[in-house]
Amino acid sequence: MNTAIKSVTARLFKIPLAEILSDAKHGDHDHFELVTTTITLEDGSEGTGYTYTGGKGGYAIKAMVEHDLAPALIGKDASQIDEIYDFMEWHIHYVGRGGIASFAISSVDIALWDLKGKRLNQPLWKMTGAKNSSCKAYCGGIDLQFTTEKLLANIQGYLDKGYNAVKIKIGRADANEDIARIKAVRELIGKDVTFMIDANYSLSVEQAIALSKAVEQYDITWFEEPTIPDDYLGYGKIADATSIPLAMGENLHTIHEFEYAFERAKLSFVQPDASNCGGITGWLKAARLADQHGIPACSHGMQELHVSLVSSQPNSGWLEVHSFPIDEYTKRPLVVKDHRAVAPDTPGVGVEFDWDKIKPFEV
Amino acid sequence: MNTAIKSVTARLFKIPLAEILSDAKHGDHDHFELVTTTITLEDGSEGTGYTYTGGKGGYAIKAMVEHDLAPALIGKDASQIDEIYDFMEWHIHYVGRGGIASFAISSVDIALWDLKGKRLNQPLWKMTGAKNSSCKAYCGGIDLQFTTEKLLANIQGYLDKGYNAVKIKIGRADANEDIARIKAVRELIGKDVTFMIDANYSLSVEQAIALSKAVEQYDITWFEEPTIPDDYLGYGKIADATSIPLAMGENLHTIHEFEYAFERAKLSFVQPDASNCGGITGWLKAARLADQHGIPACSHGMQELHVSLVSSQPNSGWLEVHSFPIDEYTKRPLVVKDHRAVAPDTPGVGVEFDWDKIKPFEV
Ligand SMILES: [Mg+2]
Ligand SMILES: [Mg+2]
Repeated sequence: MNTAIKSVTARLFKIPLAEILSDAKHGDHDHFELVTTTITLEDGSEGTGYTYTGGKGGYAIKAMVEHDLAPALIGKDASQIDEIYDFMEWHIHYVGRGGIASFAISSVDIALWDLKGKRLNQPLWKMTGAKNSSCKAYCGGIDLQFTTEKLLANIQGYLDKGYNAVKIKIGRADANEDIARIKAVRELIGKDVTFMIDANYSLSVEQAIALSKAVEQYDITWFEEPTIPDDYLGYGKIADATSIPLAMGENLHTIHEFEYAFERAKLSFVQPDASNCGGITGWLKAARLADQHGIPACSHGMQELHVSLVSSQPNSGWLEVHSFPIDEYTKRPLVVKDHRAVAPDTPGVGVEFDWDKIKPFEV
Repeated sequence: MNTAIKSVTARLFKIPLAEILSDAKHGDHDHFELVTTTITLEDGSEGTGYTYTGGKGGYAIKAMVEHDLAPALIGKDASQIDEIYDFMEWHIHYVGRGGIASFAISSVDIALWDLKGKRLNQPLWKMTGAKNSSCKAYCGGIDLQFTTEKLLANIQGYLDKGYNAVKIKIGRADANEDIARIKAVRELIGKDVTFMIDANYSLSVEQAIALSKAVEQYDITWFEEPTIPDDYLGYGKIADATSIPLAMGENLHTIHEFEYAFERAKLSFVQPDASNCGGITGWLKAARLADQHGIPACSHGMQELHVSLVSSQPNSGWLEVHSFPIDEYTKRPLVVKDHRAVAPDTPGVGVEFDWDKIKPFEV
């Protein structure tokens, strides 16, 4: 086997959503972007990684993979994933340390893990911890602008599909509406269904504390991104002042940002996203650090891949089943059994795109 | 005057350097990248901003300006710079918070300031503080791989050009070579010339402490980026253990990163770069925060623009005259008089590219 990298090819797709989805900080989404990176080795083997965005940055990610990473990766030994990861970090460090670089590195790293799994004939959950092949899962709605009626119908839809945990967006202009919606959802789902809320960092520390206190009675498992991700000490203040556990991670892109969060933000859950924190290598670094701090490793987005990662960990937390349905554009949409998401057993990362299905959305 | 934005155009240039320049972390540079952003308003007026890199990321920056920022900026009122700055930050926040987004936002912001200055008939130093129209300046060599003989000849060249302050790269594999080179430079320049060193974050905290102690006797004004920019507490340890003042800033891209640095890193100087910390708006935020902490605002790179910013501030520090000679591709290369760099008096940001000269390097 000649594992030298022969080519690295990036493609960008803009995939429409079935309806407009809104949250408190990113506004309306009518599509998401998918950037795939396919790496071919000298021995002919092929692996595909990917990343995604809420609609912005896709061209820049693709440009970075094509112009800055691909030329520098040709000839490198694809089996040396840690070395390549470090190389990429330093190679684009001046324009990196987060942002677009983290997304670009992630898509390359995932492709390398796909190649590794295929070479070793191992599924991702076995390669990355093997603690379990399934994990807890919840559905995350992007439902801030849904009417209460539609919000409840959407939540009922999640329950009907076999889930027993749900999350809604909050951060409406009038906090009383958030409180009323939270109350209505808890009444709908009863007391046995797990329930989280997510403000997409739209609140001040003071607003977050007030809201948290107002909804404590509804048994909220976590309050996600109450305030801007950069304000680690602000998270700490919210945690000290209230009883609802805090979660964040989808906006932390470097291991240093996770370190700051674990040191200062008093989180109870962390949600790294392998599409933007350095791929599988980056996600595992964050998960190991979480374990050292006694914090469960959860995920954000791309459930079709994270199901393997979250399942595999000793500190396995909750898998988010995100409203960007990337899994529906793969050969194996997410499988759920007895409320748990089940990791694929196929060698590699277990995410095989249905290229015919996404081709029409390529730009 | 109709100040609505009519068009936003980005261009990428790869400009060769006269010789290969090396530092401890970015390796060899044989060119730098320049990304220009020209904004035209409905009234026909035109402003140009820009950013630069050490050779990687240029395509991604251009892609982000073209695909994510330009379409969203058309029609906005160019005179509302703060509003546009905030809009850009949130618009690309999910793929931003530093990295490529900071470079892209910077180039747009500088174009808006160029338009503002032309509209108000004011030069940049007057618009941004007006404390002074000249500032202290030093030459920063990218000279890590120069032989000692060539290093000294290069430094002598700076003195011959009228400068009385110099900086060299350190971080050679053998720390004794760094020490010997520092000694040789101090002997060459005598005791009246200001002297800084820059490790480009290549050292561990322990290595940085050892090196700092070994060269204390050579009157070093600052030790720049001894270790990785993310390790704010590591900087604090170095500052506590040694007597040479610390400096950093070229790798801090968001106001939050500057806040962490001021809180935790025990810096004596800060060097924000308007090309990667949010343009003139971002640079001024960092400079104001520095002033609140009693720290002089210096700069990194693009001397032809920073001369106006550093001069204008009450806490004016040192202007770096960087080895990427962007100023030589403008109509007014940096002017130095009595060891001080002199800000241009032309309305706008005072940086007018010689388009004929850079055109051959467009990609
Ligand atoms: Mg979220
Ligand atoms: Mg430097």
